[in-house]
Order: sequence, then structure tokens, then C-alpha cells
Amino acid sequence: MKALTFEGPGRRVWHEVPDPVIADPEDAVVRVDAVTICGTDLHILKGDVPEVTPGRVLGHEAVGTITTVGTGVNGFTAGDRVLISCVAGCGRCRYCRENQDGQCLGGGGWTLGHLIDGTQAEQVRVPFADRALHRLPDAVTDEQALLLADILPTAYEVGVRNGRVRPGATVAIVGAGPIGLAAIMTARLMTPSRIVVIDPASGRREAAERLGADLAVPDAAAAFESMKTMTDGLGFDSVIEAVGIPETFELCADLVRPGGTVANVGVHGASAALHLERLWIRNVTITTGLVDTSSTPTLLRLLADGRLATEGLVTHRFGLDEIQDAYDVFERPQDTGALKVALFHQ
Amino acid sequence: MKALTFEGPGRRVWHEVPDPVIADPEDAVVRVDAVTICGTDLHILKGDVPEVTPGRVLGHEAVGTITTVGTGVNGFTAGDRVLISCVAGCGRCRYCRENQDGQCLGGGGWTLGHLIDGTQAEQVRVPFADRALHRLPDAVTDEQALLLADILPTAYEVGVRNGRVRPGATVAIVGAGPIGLAAIMTARLMTPSRIVVIDPASGRREAAERLGADLAVPDAAAAFESMKTMTDGLGFDSVIEAVGIPETFELCADLVRPGGTVANVGVHGASAALHLERLWIRNVTITTGLVDTSSTPTLLRLLADGRLATEGLVTHRFGLDEIQDAYDVFERPQDTGALKVALFHQ
Repeated sequence: MKALTFEGPGRRVWHEVPDPVIADPEDAVVRVDAVTICGTDLHILKGDVPEVTPGRVLGHEAVGTITTVGTGVNGFTAGDRVLISCVAGCGRCRYCRENQDGQCLGGGGWTLGHLIDGTQAEQVRVPFADRALHRLPDAVTDEQALLLADILPTAYEVGVRNGRVRPGATVAIVGAGPIGLAAIMTARLMTPSRIVVIDPASGRREAAERLGADLAVPDAAAAFESMKTMTDGLGFDSVIEAVGIPETFELCADLVRPGGTVANVGVHGASAALHLERLWIRNVTITTGLVDTSSTPTLLRLLADGRLATEGLVTHRFGLDEIQDAYDVFERPQDTGALKVALFHQ
Repeated sequence: MKALTFEGPGRRVWHEVPDPVIADPEDAVVRVDAVTICGTDLHILKGDVPEVTPGRVLGHEAVGTITTVGTGVNGFTAGDRVLISCVAGCGRCRYCRENQDGQCLGGGGWTLGHLIDGTQAEQVRVPFADRALHRLPDAVTDEQALLLADILPTAYEVGVRNGRVRPGATVAIVGAGPIGLAAIMTARLMTPSRIVVIDPASGRREAAERLGADLAVPDAAAAFESMKTMTDGLGFDSVIEAVGIPETFELCADLVRPGGTVANVGVHGASAALHLERLWIRNVTITTGLVDTSSTPTLLRLLADGRLATEGLVTHRFGLDEIQDAYDVFERPQDTGALKVALFHQ
């Protein structure tokens, strides 16, 4: 089959590799029907994720059709149309028993396109298939379902739920890339009173307002101005970090009110300063996290019921064999206006 | 009356000052029967808390007898024997309505010995008396009750509750001063499986083991060793910071397991490094906080029922007019072995 492999920092190759086969009774092999690219793939290509070794097939988000299941797979059969989740646990360890699949101690967690070959390929082997796969109803298109593989549950669990977004809350979201935009969509499920988004790119601010932000501003100064008018200068109840650099994390800690929460979603490569000399007395909660996908069935029902508007999040569409072009577009969002890209296997 | 005032960094004076009077209908004036000194008072004397201005009577922990109440005080009368809480809110603002008195927007919060004259005096004016005072049962001595003014609710709310100490949890407490020791006592209410305490002072480690720690170790290397044996190297479920310097906070972040919680209780004067490059993926929660005293009635019941052993926490006793000697002892715990000191007004 054809697949896109990581070949060391800056190098990706679309070429023939061996077909995947069942390696464990709990595996399924899935034909990839639609796949997308994540900002994390760009981090890997920069060399930021050292566990990813050359030759690894990239990608951890896809929708497909099962071709084979192992003897230990109980909930799925060949022919099922499924979502492949970016994270899946063994279902048996201490973490999985508490629905923290992302921290699985039994060999699961985030493995696809990370520790094992991923989804940017014509086929993919999916371990712990009963926990990784979700059967898709006809009402949900492949393109919609793609958003459930990572960004919607990540934004919801790690941003909105950890950030304790509640009815009537004031919410600030720093960064309006795909994760920040998915945070807007899923924050709205909680009926907050105000959502303010901070992003320097005007195209992303427009997307933010289209997807439900009450206000989108370009920088920290404007964010503090909105904090003054919307929260009487007290600070936001919930602040979501969706960028992944020290400056934006530190901005979040300056925007949160006493008693509020900063939920970090960004993938960070460096430490940030935590101003405990100001924060120690302020009852602030800071959370980090990798998605556990415990919310995926709920989000899938909402999507099928039309209660989660995702229009406009996918900006570019390609054939699977055009994946190198798709990367070129996704890597330069300031020029191309790319948010999410979707690739379809004909 | 006589009182101890702050007279600029390094200067404290015990001298005659005007008697306090009712200034607001919600005030009470209380004769101080017993009072203690807090590590925070030492921070103030160092000049670390700039809101405290020269001439201010220090102290925010006391037990006493009401002499006068304002016309707006409904729950207390002259002659009542009461605990004076270090924190009291207005009871009406947004924060107080959510039991976050420490963040009160209505003029309350931590005011005694901070923004108004405090308890290290023969008498004290207590604002928001209905919320600040707690009537004491005969079963609780003045000395026991003193521990409820600050350290027990602070350790319980900001350390144990924020730190999500639960039955079966592994707990690490960094620092075995009065707050760290109070964290041991109140953590035990939750029946954790193991409590490890880290403190370089051997006398404090002995106190920690006497008060219920399973193990007390002197340094980070020994803490990591205990993490290996007690948690299979995974890390502690709950880690409580009870010192207040960058090194100890950063140690806490290295001791917590994926999915665990670091609860900061220490009063910090500088920022710490937050290693998001390691933490972003680990589902870690970090909390800060000032005590809200919502737990004080519960802790008082436990103390009255003999369910909270506090023996050995008060190491030195003085007359109130010996307060300068008491400070001298409390400031040099490495020489004197002081934990908490209690001063009694004859």
C-alpha cells in the first residue's frame, strides 16, 4: 500500500510500504476512507517529538472501513464504517478503568503515528479496536467524523471540561487554530455568557466569530481591554490555551479571574514561568492533558443530531495521493487560510 | 491596650495603642484570650507583603471572648467564647455566595493583621463577625481552637481538598512546618494509603512521623526513591507544596503521577518554572489558593469529637506580654524546635 512516512526532521515521503496485518487478537485493520493532518504532525516533522522514529507512518485521525478483525475484537466486524480515535487504551489498567485512556499503562494511549504506524496511509492497523473504533451512523459524513478523531474531543475534554466552562461563564480562548476553533464550538454546548478569542491572524479571527465567538481580538492588549469591559477587570472564569508557547500560556494566567481555571491544550516544547508570587493567593486551577476520548460517543451523538455545527472548519480537500500538496497547504496557514484539510481515498 | 505592631521591615514593637471600637454594624470587638504567630507574619516582617503598612497590629489567628457586638451582628452576643477565623467574607458577593470568602469582593477576605489591625493584641475588632466567628464548645481548649484559625482549614482546603486526597491515595507533602504537619493530620481524614513527607530538618521529620506520616525523608533524592518503591515509579496521586519557594514547587511537579494533582499551599515570593514540555501530555492539575474557611465548622466538630489529633503541634507557650520572646523562638525553629507557639492573655 501507499503511505506517508516520517524520514527524519523536515522529511516526509509518500511511497509504497508493506500492508498492515493483524498482530494482536485485539487489532483491526481498517481501509482508510478519509484522513486529516494535525498540528502535532508538524511538530513531529520539526523533530519535536523524539519518540517518533524514521520510517514511521504518520497520522492519528481517520475514518475508514474495517477489512479484518482479530479474534479478540468483539464489537466490530469487517465492513463496518468506523471512526478511528487518536487515543485508545487497553481498557483494563488503572487509568483506563478511570476513563483516562490517554495515560494507559497497558500499551495503549496515543500510539498511532507516534509509537506505531498511523493513518496517513491506504490502510492502518488499529490496536485495542473495541476501544479505538466508533461505528458511524449514516447521518454523519466522513468529513464531519474526521473532526471527532482528535480535535473535537481534545478541545472539549482538555479545554472545555478541564477548564470548567459552565452556563454563564466568561471564557477566553488563546489561539484560533483548529483546536481553538473546536474549543469555541464545544464551549458553546455549555452556554457560556461570553467567549473571547485571541489570535493575531485575521482569517482565524473571522472563523472564530463565524463559529460562535462573541469577540475575536488580535493581541494581549486587546484581550485585557475585553477583560475590563466583559468581566469588570476581574478576569475570565475559564481560559483555554490553544497555542503551545510560553508567552500564550503566561497570557492565560494573566487573564484568569481569582477562583478561575486555565486549561492548557497546547503542545509545548519549552517551560513557562508560573507567577506563583501573584497566583498563590488567587485560588487558580491549572490543568494539562491529553485527550482520553471518553466524550467521543457523546460528541458523535450531538453531531448526528445536528447539535454541533462544524461548517467551515475543513477549508481544503484533496485526494489521499495528493497528501504532499495537502501538507504544503496546511503548513502555511497564513498564506493559504487553511484550518483543517481533509483527504479522501477514492 | 497593648499590641504588637509592624514598624517596617525587621521592626516589631509591643506597646500601648488605642482600644478598638465598633466601626461597622457587622463588627464585634473581642478580648483576645489566646493567639499564635504564623509563618506569614514572618513574611510580613521581612517586607514581603507590601500591603501591610507601618503601625499595623499583626496577627490573624486567635481565640477570645466577645466584649461588644455591632447592631448588625445576629449570631453572637457579648460573653461568647469564640474562634476568630483568619478569613471572613461579606457573605453577599459572588465569591462568598460560592463559599470563597478568601476572594471576597465586599471588603472581606484576609484583612486581620493585613489590611486592618490584627489579633496580636489584648483586643481586636473583627469585621463580618457573623461569618468570622465560631462559638467554641467546652470540649475544645483555647490551644486546640487556635489551630482552627488558619493552619488546619488552610491545610485541609488548600492542600488536602484541592489536592484531591482520596481513600487509597499516595500523598507526598513537601515541607513539614506547621502547615505541612496540619496537612498530614487532615489528609489522614481521607484514609490515604501512604503519606510521605519531605523536609531537611530532622526535628520536623520526627514530628511528621509522630503525627501520621508513613515516611519522612530529608531531600529530593530520597523522595524519588520513595516514589519508586511506593508508586512503582509512577508518581504520587496528590502532592502538597507547603514551603513556598521555586525549588520545592518544581519538586512537587516532578513527584506527581500522570493524572495527579499538585496543590500549592506555600506563600511564594518568586515565580517558578512550569515544565509544560513534560506536563502538557500528563493530565496534571495544579491548584493555588487562600483558605476560604468553609471547612472550619466541620473541623471544629471533628476536634470536639476527638477525631483530629493535634497533640505536639504547639511546642512553646507564653504569656501574651512575652510576645517578643515568642517571635524570637518562632523565628529560629532550627535552634528551638518550634512548630506552633501559643500565647495566653492572663
